[in-house]
Amino acid sequence: MPDKVLVYSRFPKAMTARFAERFDLMITNGKPPAETFSAAELSDVRAIITSGSTLMGAKHMDVLPALKTIICYGTGYDGVDLAEAAKRGIAVGNSPGANAASVADIAMTLMLATTRRLLPADNYVRSGDWANAKPSPLMSAQAGNVGRKVGIYGMGAIGRKIAARVAAFESDVAYHSRSRHDVPYRYEPSLAALVAWCNVLMIAVRAGPDTHRIIDAEMLRRLGPDGFVVNISRGSVIDEASLVAALTDKTIAGVGLDVYEKEPHPPDALTRFPNVVLTPHVGGHTLESHAAMQGCVMANLEAFFAGRPLAYPVGADG
Amino acid sequence: MPDKVLVYSRFPKAMTARFAERFDLMITNGKPPAETFSAAELSDVRAIITSGSTLMGAKHMDVLPALKTIICYGTGYDGVDLAEAAKRGIAVGNSPGANAASVADIAMTLMLATTRRLLPADNYVRSGDWANAKPSPLMSAQAGNVGRKVGIYGMGAIGRKIAARVAAFESDVAYHSRSRHDVPYRYEPSLAALVAWCNVLMIAVRAGPDTHRIIDAEMLRRLGPDGFVVNISRGSVIDEASLVAALTDKTIAGVGLDVYEKEPHPPDALTRFPNVVLTPHVGGHTLESHAAMQGCVMANLEAFFAGRPLAYPVGADG
Repeated sequence: MPDKVLVYSRFPKAMTARFAERFDLMITNGKPPAETFSAAELSDVRAIITSGSTLMGAKHMDVLPALKTIICYGTGYDGVDLAEAAKRGIAVGNSPGANAASVADIAMTLMLATTRRLLPADNYVRSGDWANAKPSPLMSAQAGNVGRKVGIYGMGAIGRKIAARVAAFESDVAYHSRSRHDVPYRYEPSLAALVAWCNVLMIAVRAGPDTHRIIDAEMLRRLGPDGFVVNISRGSVIDEASLVAALTDKTIAGVGLDVYEKEPHPPDALTRFPNVVLTPHVGGHTLESHAAMQGCVMANLEAFFAGRPLAYPVGADG
Repeated sequence: MPDKVLVYSRFPKAMTARFAERFDLMITNGKPPAETFSAAELSDVRAIITSGSTLMGAKHMDVLPALKTIICYGTGYDGVDLAEAAKRGIAVGNSPGANAASVADIAMTLMLATTRRLLPADNYVRSGDWANAKPSPLMSAQAGNVGRKVGIYGMGAIGRKIAARVAAFESDVAYHSRSRHDVPYRYEPSLAALVAWCNVLMIAVRAGPDTHRIIDAEMLRRLGPDGFVVNISRGSVIDEASLVAALTDKTIAGVGLDVYEKEPHPPDALTRFPNVVLTPHVGGHTLESHAAMQGCVMANLEAFFAGRPLAYPVGADG
C-alpha cells in the first residue's frame, strides 16, 4: 500500500499529478482537513504537502496527531510555526532556490512594466488614443534604467538572481539583508538607508515576524515621489493600508506586486491605480519552476518515508 | 540672427525646446512644409530635423531647394532616400546608439510581458476573477527564461544591449546579421536558421529595402506555435497581414510590438488578441535617451552651421 500524504493547501491538479503516481494523496482543496476526512482517516497521517504561506500552527497540528513532516511546495515556509513543529519533532522541508529564476524574472517584469508604464502604453494603443493623437500625460518620457538605483532587500537565491538581472540593465545595485554576503554589490547597513538611496525597492526578503509590515508609511516617505516598490516575496512585508495611502497622495511613483497580505484578495483600492501592476502570485509559476519544486517535494517525501533526514530541510539554504 | 532650422516631423514641444534656444525653428507639426510656410520662406532652408522614419525622397527635397543637411532625431534614417541626398550633396546625420539602452529595455519589457502573460495576469487580479477563483486557461504555467532560446536579428548597438540583458536571464542567445560580429554569441548564417532555432525572435535590425516584410508567413511558420516575436526596430520588417493571420490561427504563441508599418495606426485586428502586447513606439522614449539624442542633433547642427563635417553622419556607426 502506498504511503499516505495529505495535501493541505489548495493546488491545481496538474501540480500534484506527479505525487499521486507515488503516494496515496488525501486532497483537502485548501479546506480544513476535518471537513473532508474523518478523525480516524487523519489519525495516521504522517506527512503533508502545503504551500509555505498556509497557516500551520499548534491548533492545525493538533488535528494531525501522527504528523512527522511538513513539506512546503516552494521556497517559503512563513505560515509554518517552526518552533511548534520542532517541539513536536516534526521535520519541515521546502524547495530552496527551485523557483528563484522564475521569481526573479517576475520581479524584473514588474519593475520594467511599472517604470516604463507598460499597461497605460498598451491601453493607449488598443483604445485608439494613439491613432487619434489624443494627449496623454501618462505617456510622457520617464527615467530609464541606465544609472537607476535599484535596492534589493534580501540577498538569498532570489535576491541574487534579481541583482544579476538588474546589473545587466546598466543600473546601480545595492542591497540590505541581515548579514553581508559575498556578492559584488554594495551593502547598506539598514533597510532605511537602502530605501533612502534607491529609486526602485525590490523586496526579496524572507517573510517572518521581523519583517512583518516593515515597509510602512515612514519607509514609503523615505522612498519618495520618484520611487517604486516591487514585491515578489510575501504580502505581509508591506503595510498595505500605508501603500494605498502612499499611492493616493503620490508619496511614491508606482508599485508592482505579485503578492498580497490576504491572497487572493488584494485591497480593492489598489486595483484603481494606473501606476500599479498586479500579478496573481505567479512568480514561481513556470513549467521549469514547478518541475524543480516538485522534484524537491518528491525528494523530501522519499527521504522521509525511507527514514532518512529530509533532502531539503528548512533553513539549510541560509 | 540665428540660423534657420525646419522641424520636418511632428515632435512634442518638450523635445525641441533645446533646439529653440539656439536656432530659429520653423515648426511644421508634421504637415507638408508648404502648408505652413511660403515658398519664399522655404527657399533658404538649409537644415531640417526629422524623425528617421518620416519619408524624405526626391519630391520632398524639391520643396527645399537650399537643403544641405537632414538631421534625424534618433537612430533610424529609413525614411530618407540616401542616394537622392548624396546626389544633391545633402549630408544626413543621426543619433547613433543614443537610445540603445532605452530601446533594449523596451524589447525586454515586451519579451517578459508577452511570455509571462502580464496583461492577462494583471486583468485577472483587477477584474476580481482571482479573488473569485475563476478558472483561467490563460493563467496556466508557461515556459520561463532559463534555457530559453532567444534569437536576435541585427547586432548593432541595440542588438548588443538586448543580448547582454537576455543573457542575464540565463537564456541562450544566438543572432543573425549581414556579417559576423566580435560578440560572445552564436552566429546563425541565415535569418531562416535563426528563426527555426529560436523561441523568441527579437527584431533589432536596421530597416531598409533588404529587410522589407522579411518576417513573412513562411518565417512565422518556422517560428512555430511556441514562438514569440518582439519588434522594436521598424514595422516595415514584418508583414503585418501575415502576423495577424499567424496570431489568428495560432501559428505562433504571441507577439510584442513597439513599432508598426503605418504609425500611429496598428492594424485593428492586432488589438483584439490577449497574447499581444502593444506599445506606441516608446522604445527610445526615456529622459536620458531624449537628452542623448538631442545632444547628437545639436552636435550635428552646430557642425553643419560651422561648415564642418557632421558629428554623427549616417552610416558611420556601421
